[in-house]
Amino acid sequence: MLSVEEALAGILAQSNRLPSEAVSLMEAQGRVLAEAITAECDLPPFDNSAVDGYAVLSTDTESASSDTPVTLRVIGEVVAGELAEQQLLTGAAIRVMTGAPMPVGADAMVMVEDTRLGGGNTVQILLPARKHDHIRFRGEEVRQGDTVLTEGTPIYSTQIGLLARAGHGQVRVYRRPRVAVISTGDELIGIEEPTPPLGKIRDSNRYALGSMVQEAGAILHSLTHIPDDLEATEAAFRQCVDSGADVIVTAGGVSVGDRDYVKPVLEKLGRLEFWRIAMKPGKPLAFGQIGNTLFFGLPGNPVSAMVTFELFARPALRKMAGYPDNAIMRPIIAVTLSEPIPHTPPRREYARAIVTLEQSGFVATTTGNQGSSRLSSMMGANALIVIPEYSNGLDAGEQAQALLLNLK
Amino acid sequence: MLSVEEALAGILAQSNRLPSEAVSLMEAQGRVLAEAITAECDLPPFDNSAVDGYAVLSTDTESASSDTPVTLRVIGEVVAGELAEQQLLTGAAIRVMTGAPMPVGADAMVMVEDTRLGGGNTVQILLPARKHDHIRFRGEEVRQGDTVLTEGTPIYSTQIGLLARAGHGQVRVYRRPRVAVISTGDELIGIEEPTPPLGKIRDSNRYALGSMVQEAGAILHSLTHIPDDLEATEAAFRQCVDSGADVIVTAGGVSVGDRDYVKPVLEKLGRLEFWRIAMKPGKPLAFGQIGNTLFFGLPGNPVSAMVTFELFARPALRKMAGYPDNAIMRPIIAVTLSEPIPHTPPRREYARAIVTLEQSGFVATTTGNQGSSRLSSMMGANALIVIPEYSNGLDAGEQAQALLLNLK
Repeated sequence: MLSVEEALAGILAQSNRLPSEAVSLMEAQGRVLAEAITAECDLPPFDNSAVDGYAVLSTDTESASSDTPVTLRVIGEVVAGELAEQQLLTGAAIRVMTGAPMPVGADAMVMVEDTRLGGGNTVQILLPARKHDHIRFRGEEVRQGDTVLTEGTPIYSTQIGLLARAGHGQVRVYRRPRVAVISTGDELIGIEEPTPPLGKIRDSNRYALGSMVQEAGAILHSLTHIPDDLEATEAAFRQCVDSGADVIVTAGGVSVGDRDYVKPVLEKLGRLEFWRIAMKPGKPLAFGQIGNTLFFGLPGNPVSAMVTFELFARPALRKMAGYPDNAIMRPIIAVTLSEPIPHTPPRREYARAIVTLEQSGFVATTTGNQGSSRLSSMMGANALIVIPEYSNGLDAGEQAQALLLNLK
Repeated sequence: MLSVEEALAGILAQSNRLPSEAVSLMEAQGRVLAEAITAECDLPPFDNSAVDGYAVLSTDTESASSDTPVTLRVIGEVVAGELAEQQLLTGAAIRVMTGAPMPVGADAMVMVEDTRLGGGNTVQILLPARKHDHIRFRGEEVRQGDTVLTEGTPIYSTQIGLLARAGHGQVRVYRRPRVAVISTGDELIGIEEPTPPLGKIRDSNRYALGSMVQEAGAILHSLTHIPDDLEATEAAFRQCVDSGADVIVTAGGVSVGDRDYVKPVLEKLGRLEFWRIAMKPGKPLAFGQIGNTLFFGLPGNPVSAMVTFELFARPALRKMAGYPDNAIMRPIIAVTLSEPIPHTPPRREYARAIVTLEQSGFVATTTGNQGSSRLSSMMGANALIVIPEYSNGLDAGEQAQALLLNLK
């Protein structure tokens, strides 16, 4: 049997970053930058005021105090978006709004709160300005041509702002993988059908895995179901490949049963690596390729399907979308167990758990019965506790490692 | 001046959950459930096998071992999706696949790995089965009519699976707020225009705030810019309200300047509460309503706009979308500072920081120069360190509180 790490390494080695494409700025959110972005001009692009107030010559204000204000003649005003028309000479002040350009000759700003209106177009300065007070200088944040974002950066709101500031209405990002999700099994009834007759059950894998595809930042290419039938299986896989799916994810049909057609069809159309992985839930995993389409044959038990998607398919999808290494895998944290967790060697186990952040650190509590058909054991789970292969069970209060899916 | 808590409490008191709407199952991802969901049938709906193997009468296998196997006649097969046609009597076995119904009369499953094929339609049982081995009993996970999801539950992939299993092709969720984003200022140049002439700068707020709206799970209703003009401001606000925006977010134009038109127009069309909040960045905040549309007038400095959106607008949007209390606010964590952070009373400061999870716990490092016009100080930031109002600065190694925006 393979270890989880061996299987994942094999999968990531075959998961290649997709080509880039140009998208509009607001569509770039959540994508990964496929080009370096440089500043189109100095930032700020010109010396400007950081406050609403008066541009002055600092030497004019040296003796100013609220008892002995310095009176200056107001010779003009500059608002944001305009240029100062006059040059500032000694004895004068120019009113300047936040973000507006500094008038030529001025070397400091006095905040409006530190002034009083005088009579006849004058202003009283109530405290001395130091040279360069409240001025943002051209290029002090970024120089024209500087790299402001590097290739491979995930794009969130700050990056959207930085791209806008660099004048990019369009941006090159890596393409997101298109993922076809297929559930298999004669016993499955979709949500569009009435209550299942005896012997049939509602399909949940198709929808839960489709949702996980979207949560991973990939595109849900299609969502289908195939019966336990050789020809239907082959036709479905061909259809996914021909319609441009980058990845096929199936649930079920990879067991040792006579009616498990996923493996034979994958072997016929492409290349199959069938792994028994030393883990629980989710021992069997069919991985391979049909042409350039990656293939994940996940087990059919709902929890096994979701956990193996999380551990193996999600990192592949993230890598294909261009995410950097630290955004491909989930964070691994140290947790203190609030309860004992039984375990029998030799398979590593992933227990669904609720992790909360307490004064003492992260505390983990399992979601109860961990049967792999119990979808409700995923309810509220925000972490997977890693129970080592040869553990004979973990005690309450013991430390363990956990994959953090999200933090509440 | 108001405290951050007072301002937020005032805002949340006026942020009402929006009405519900029906959406298709796969559109429900990331939304909040507006109805309780009950099980349409027992789960599992019938006794079924947890393994591929043979249904037996456990008493028939009491003496079985690999040296002295018990030989049973195989009288049939049940695959998933079908019903057992025969009743099991002593001396017989029925092959049953994972998930398929248990035949009447059988009380245990023997895994195929614990059997050997015998001659002439027989199977050799290699170890004794205990009563109820490997059977999943009807209703052991959920009883028909039980509540499987409560109203107010955020819907992620597990919930999508549970909704599918409960037969819900459609589901009632709370409506997401439609948010109009408007940047103000004559100095701003959009991404569709060529390099800004002297005196003008690229607008980043419009796009960064638009992106934050989407990251909060809300709908970006519109993304516009208005010049510093009374009539244009009034027309823009009316247009947002008339076209059904639930929330208007503006950036800039809320200062004390003569050309700040946001407050007078809001006062004319609706109700204004203008707050000076004891925080940095982002002291001034105009909050109010025009009809039923909530209004957030954020400051114009890029960092101030993003931090005030995070602290005040995002919680309001999350509450309107129906999120429970623990998903409205960001988690607050204790961090150890890797460096000193200067501070001058009396305003609370939010320092942009990179928080990493080390052996010792969360460690925070600021993103450098914290000038509120420096959008690049948001780069990589995944947390906001809270510097208390009356602190005279924090030391390296000191503990502080931080809002965790995301965990790398």
